[in-house]
Amino acid sequence: MTCNIDETHDPALVAWVASANGHSDFPVQNLPYAIFRRGDDRARIGVAIGEQILDLAAVADLGLVDADLIAVLQSATLNDLLALTPAARRRLRHRLSFLLSDRGYEAALLPHLVAGADCTLGLPATIGDYTDFYVGIHHALNVGSLFRPDAPLLPNYRHIPIGYHGRASSIRPSGQPVRRPNGQLKLAGQEEPTFGPSRRLDFELELGIWIAGENELGRPIPIGEAPKHIGGFCLLNDWSARDIQAWEYQPLGPFLSKNFHSTISPWIITPEALAPFRQAQPARSEGEPRPLAYLWDESDQHQGGLALDMEVLICTERMRANSISPKRLCRTKTSHMYWTAAQIVTHHASNGCNLNPGDLLGTGTISGPTRDAFGSLLEISSGGAEPVTLPTGETRTFVEDGDEIILRARAEREGFASIGFGECRAVVQPAVT
Amino acid sequence: MTCNIDETHDPALVAWVASANGHSDFPVQNLPYAIFRRGDDRARIGVAIGEQILDLAAVADLGLVDADLIAVLQSATLNDLLALTPAARRRLRHRLSFLLSDRGYEAALLPHLVAGADCTLGLPATIGDYTDFYVGIHHALNVGSLFRPDAPLLPNYRHIPIGYHGRASSIRPSGQPVRRPNGQLKLAGQEEPTFGPSRRLDFELELGIWIAGENELGRPIPIGEAPKHIGGFCLLNDWSARDIQAWEYQPLGPFLSKNFHSTISPWIITPEALAPFRQAQPARSEGEPRPLAYLWDESDQHQGGLALDMEVLICTERMRANSISPKRLCRTKTSHMYWTAAQIVTHHASNGCNLNPGDLLGTGTISGPTRDAFGSLLEISSGGAEPVTLPTGETRTFVEDGDEIILRARAEREGFASIGFGECRAVVQPAVT
Repeated sequence: MTCNIDETHDPALVAWVASANGHSDFPVQNLPYAIFRRGDDRARIGVAIGEQILDLAAVADLGLVDADLIAVLQSATLNDLLALTPAARRRLRHRLSFLLSDRGYEAALLPHLVAGADCTLGLPATIGDYTDFYVGIHHALNVGSLFRPDAPLLPNYRHIPIGYHGRASSIRPSGQPVRRPNGQLKLAGQEEPTFGPSRRLDFELELGIWIAGENELGRPIPIGEAPKHIGGFCLLNDWSARDIQAWEYQPLGPFLSKNFHSTISPWIITPEALAPFRQAQPARSEGEPRPLAYLWDESDQHQGGLALDMEVLICTERMRANSISPKRLCRTKTSHMYWTAAQIVTHHASNGCNLNPGDLLGTGTISGPTRDAFGSLLEISSGGAEPVTLPTGETRTFVEDGDEIILRARAEREGFASIGFGECRAVVQPAVT
Repeated sequence: MTCNIDETHDPALVAWVASANGHSDFPVQNLPYAIFRRGDDRARIGVAIGEQILDLAAVADLGLVDADLIAVLQSATLNDLLALTPAARRRLRHRLSFLLSDRGYEAALLPHLVAGADCTLGLPATIGDYTDFYVGIHHALNVGSLFRPDAPLLPNYRHIPIGYHGRASSIRPSGQPVRRPNGQLKLAGQEEPTFGPSRRLDFELELGIWIAGENELGRPIPIGEAPKHIGGFCLLNDWSARDIQAWEYQPLGPFLSKNFHSTISPWIITPEALAPFRQAQPARSEGEPRPLAYLWDESDQHQGGLALDMEVLICTERMRANSISPKRLCRTKTSHMYWTAAQIVTHHASNGCNLNPGDLLGTGTISGPTRDAFGSLLEISSGGAEPVTLPTGETRTFVEDGDEIILRARAEREGFASIGFGECRAVVQPAVT
């Protein structure tokens, strides 16, 4: 990410929308985009400001943005915005920062602010392709240890940002319930598989990366160009049925254990908003291989890492009935990514594979080194052996029907306004019978 | 496939387009759809008839089809046609069969026939998601034997139609050149991987299945309903870089070894056209497990198999320079599929995964039991150990730059007009340096 810190990040900048100026995920320094609907109205592009959403189609109609941005902002998806050049995307951010902090625009724009609580947020973009990676090294170690105690990390892990293709059609925005999948299960002690509801439904805490711009088929994206192809970030819950996965995944990888539903947070948090929260990629230990040249960039090593705190919470049906707050299951950091977002993008396109605006990449589960930082129940419960106890006395090894899983992320740094991602949440419904 | 044999399959039916009545892939009994362009004209839907293409947008403009089909046929993709009900799709076939065989329409339609040779054929549909399966049991045995001589078939193979997600963005129609991919290779005798052009580029002979209709997320497709979701078939060359694959594929499956380019034949051969060529699914041997109930349907077992002959040919640069005809590398049959198209579709949706019109499924490589029926060079050359000799004296273990790979398929049955799929061909270009 090559974005610089500029006046849009000034912590002294104050929005004329009051709710943006307390401890909000969406102060005027954030300015993420989403697709919103109010009632039966058509889907529109909005920018979050505190608890409000500014209707960007209306801003375009008022002629308050450059002419080249008008049609882009009147669209019903963010694909066109993600197809803009990085310079045009930055120009839009600067304009919105100005419009929302200059009181001179309050009267004109107030009619086009809507309460977030009154809106439904959709998928930000038409997702052409979705790819999931595996760059959380503690997750790879934890999962590898369950299957291969002697050699948890495979020999390729420290050379390749391991990834595989996922299902685009079943990605849904936060708030939509998740149906527990049926599938083939090989139960302990049984010779033959059976078909039925998954008994080991899990969440996975991931960061999503929205692709911007495109590369022609056959043309790789050099690592120095990768930041131009990163249009933003979101939270991603890569729901996983561990029992379906265990039986199906050899030799071609996870399939029906993963593609029944993936939940994302609806706001695209831009790389520009995250400029103050970049950091060096953690140095590799002695003896670890240096990445091959196509994945190596000094600037990316110095500032291609992200300093985000992430957490997962659970709220069961009984907790909701007793008005008990969600319980945190995990708190971790994006600094546990072994590969940067730029390395992920460059590796994906290194064979000429074409990436398009609105494609979504998942990082894979971002666990930390200790149990309170594990990003899935498979890890937290040690493969189902060590249940978690909840405030109601209920225990969990995996997700049960009625449970709501909530993902959050926040960026904080001394001297800057803290920004958040909004929530990624979904309740699990019983399997179809 | 529940389509019945009817008057559109009558072998005595003769088109008023002369080229359709010899040994054509596209007699009036076939009637496949594609997206074509002539010069700079817009993309249009066409139906193949002999060496000609009938412009269906023009047929719609003339009011020669039912009102509900007009907008569908004026589209620039076949997604809307694939979203029609099976009854509407059958109705369209009957109408086109009548229009192309009744001389009364010749004068009106002749101006809207274009020579196939003058047209470029595009992707038939916007492919939302692409999934590749592994149902060619001889291929699974052959590849498994190379990696695991003791246990070539994994325990799940005879229970699950094994599949995994692929890349939709890099699927291209026949005729577009394929760029040899670069990637990480772990060369024999080297400790560390290197990055460079694949040295083991391969083809894979597959059947493609076009999805019609849709199921809501969370709602499976019962096996009895699966035929309604099959909108047609094509040829698919799942280009594969075996050396990239060997190093990257653990633990999540093939990724960059497969997603750099996939070539499909541009014509959608409908299940209606294939009605005479259905056959019983080969009976399972003694001791093989019966499929689980959700994959079992008597009618599908009796007529869910397809009787297609498929072949792969190669033409090297030197062969072209010396006007030597393409050499056949493989001849096989779709009866080597261990699972039917309906079982593939039902398994894919069994966890609630939603399939959409225009999604593409690949069967996986359809090899036969003998070397002359193997559907990839990995198998034909026994992993590179046994080269193939070509008429020029050249040898091949894998595909070299300048080679053209050509896939064909044909359905023949006594008492019926034989139909073909058209070609799926592409020339390999050198890697980007």
